[in-house]
Amino acid sequence: MSLRTGADLRTLRERKPLVHQITNYVVMNETANATLALGALPVMAHAPQEVEEMASVAGALVLNIGTLSDHWVEAMLLAGAAANRAGVPIVLDPVGAGATGYRTETARRLLDVLEIAVVRGNAAEVATLAGREAEIRGVEAIDASDSPAVLARAAARQLGCVAAVTGPVDHVSDGERSYAIANGHELLGTVSGTGCMSTAVTGCFLAARPQAPVEAAAEALVAFGVAGEDAAEEAKGPGTFHAALYDALYNLDPDTLDSRARVE
Amino acid sequence: MSLRTGADLRTLRERKPLVHQITNYVVMNETANATLALGALPVMAHAPQEVEEMASVAGALVLNIGTLSDHWVEAMLLAGAAANRAGVPIVLDPVGAGATGYRTETARRLLDVLEIAVVRGNAAEVATLAGREAEIRGVEAIDASDSPAVLARAAARQLGCVAAVTGPVDHVSDGERSYAIANGHELLGTVSGTGCMSTAVTGCFLAARPQAPVEAAAEALVAFGVAGEDAAEEAKGPGTFHAALYDALYNLDPDTLDSRARVE
Amino acid sequence: MSLRTGADLRTLRERKPLVHQITNYVVMNETANATLALGALPVMAHAPQEVEEMASVAGALVLNIGTLSDHWVEAMLLAGAAANRAGVPIVLDPVGAGATGYRTETARRLLDVLEIAVVRGNAAEVATLAGREAEIRGVEAIDASDSPAVLARAAARQLGCVAAVTGPVDHVSDGERSYAIANGHELLGTVSGTGCMSTAVTGCFLAARPQAPVEAAAEALVAFGVAGEDAAEEAKGPGTFHAALYDALYNLDPDTLDSRARVE
Repeated sequence: MSLRTGADLRTLRERKPLVHQITNYVVMNETANATLALGALPVMAHAPQEVEEMASVAGALVLNIGTLSDHWVEAMLLAGAAANRAGVPIVLDPVGAGATGYRTETARRLLDVLEIAVVRGNAAEVATLAGREAEIRGVEAIDASDSPAVLARAAARQLGCVAAVTGPVDHVSDGERSYAIANGHELLGTVSGTGCMSTAVTGCFLAARPQAPVEAAAEALVAFGVAGEDAAEEAKGPGTFHAALYDALYNLDPDTLDSRARVE
Repeated sequence: MSLRTGADLRTLRERKPLVHQITNYVVMNETANATLALGALPVMAHAPQEVEEMASVAGALVLNIGTLSDHWVEAMLLAGAAANRAGVPIVLDPVGAGATGYRTETARRLLDVLEIAVVRGNAAEVATLAGREAEIRGVEAIDASDSPAVLARAAARQLGCVAAVTGPVDHVSDGERSYAIANGHELLGTVSGTGCMSTAVTGCFLAARPQAPVEAAAEALVAFGVAGEDAAEEAKGPGTFHAALYDALYNLDPDTLDSRARVE
Repeated sequence: MSLRTGADLRTLRERKPLVHQITNYVVMNETANATLALGALPVMAHAPQEVEEMASVAGALVLNIGTLSDHWVEAMLLAGAAANRAGVPIVLDPVGAGATGYRTETARRLLDVLEIAVVRGNAAEVATLAGREAEIRGVEAIDASDSPAVLARAAARQLGCVAAVTGPVDHVSDGERSYAIANGHELLGTVSGTGCMSTAVTGCFLAARPQAPVEAAAEALVAFGVAGEDAAEEAKGPGTFHAALYDALYNLDPDTLDSRARVE
């Protein structure tokens, strides 16, 4: 196995997979627009009457706990079970796990009940789920005691899924194979929801390459990181960077993408 | 009757009608900003305690089923009934009708129970409501078996309201009079929520010209399409286009708008 | 006491306080991004299971009633009580108070039950809460019979908290000390949620200077107004202004901020 980000982006744009997202109120527009700019079709639906129907025809399901409440957790469980039955891969974004007990417990419950393909979070969130020490304030990670590379591998083994730990360098592991991705730009940290966007993009690549989730997750972070680098070029701050990020996702060139990957 | 988009835009900006929107989480900010940029006053309210009070003093009511759940459907029914009693025109956006049974049934229920002035959707959504064959994935229309011009006329007759079917060319009909509007730009398809924005803009023009809903709906699509053309001029992709779209709505010139309309 | 906006901005950026926001669906992304661009850490959480835990560790709590419903009011009361117990200052944005009975009653209830540090609203909203005559349409203030300076002082005395009345000139008062802030730009009125953003920024400055809420509220409006002036420089309308506003908040210079304040 190896990364083939350009080819999978091309596949994604040809197939235009439906990416069903049950996500938080803060970033719904942002993740929908990132999905659409990349070349897939986003759909948001959370009613118990329709989530199973929608999830079972999707190319991937994105679950994000950024603004939880009980009705939404139930929707995630229903949609997730339908996705599992239909063989639709799920990516989980455990936003703020560790910040409150409710978030930590909900993320763990989703991991217990559902078969999750990829967990994408920052070091503190993933460390919390893997039982590691971490310091978190709100939904921002401050620190985690393990190195992120070690953390990703350990979390993957313990959680039984791919762990994608994002930060200055992103680390993706299935417990055996690991990738370290150095693409990205510090302005990504100045816009709310860029982590959630990277999770949505992970869903897009999972839909294009469902049989290799660790490679799909790594490719997603390469593509998103390269887009961040492009967006930063003329940005004057978080606002113009945010607008340029969608432009950059839309303008990603499959022919040059692999040569720009900074992966180990 | 004929279109007088510039004059009605001028009226709208002078009167600044209140446009009450019960819409989906993904696009609330976008439709509020489109409404405000055009020159009307948006208000979002969905609590059963206040929707009747708000809808009955509005210039138009916008109902959008993009992220449904039961509480929101109840709010739409309450607000819609109050709007009907007060003579406030309603525009319905049946986002994703056809994609799940829940959306199709809810859109039909709103059309059955309420007097809707205009339905604004893509071909697959409108075809679903009119009982036509259509293929839909998520909330994106892929195809519809009728031509959109035929579909708009047939849907208007069957649903008993104005049908506005948007696409590369928009078709608006009340079953008798029909307009085909060729304004717009392909970048509109790369930003999530531009369909919902066009529905909000339809609400604005309905508030300015409530006695002629088919003309109001056509004028809205002329104005929104011209704004899309202006926004595309310096856009580098979906993000800069999105920002430029609000600029363009704000800068629409009533004096030149009619000369730029591409209407049959 | 006096204003020291630059120094408090520097403090804020060093401490990166957590600003917990229970706010409306329309502006969640906007207030999160304004908070982050300024230099603090936003977190949105509204589930009854976690709001107390989150509010009690925050630097400030922002309550905004822009898209109310009963579950959200309960969350605000729970979070507010926890914030009061922990000594965390609360800023209330009574969006649309006066527009419907539900909003007016909810805003009054929050003011009755909780110890609010600052109310930030437009003249009609604050006038409604202070029992003054006001005309309001939707969530936009049209007029208020008192001058805003008189209103701010009277409302502060009556409500027992700092009143920040924003408009072409902002007026902040605790009933004794008052500040009039002339910073800002008319384009702020063309973007939905800029009032809500100014409330979030008030929360940020309250977290940096909790012992002097009238000064913190005035400093927030100086900083936000200066950012608005900077954003307007190259803006072509509401969309590019909106993006530039985050750039401007991010690029605010603590060294020159006080010299740019137009305060009486």
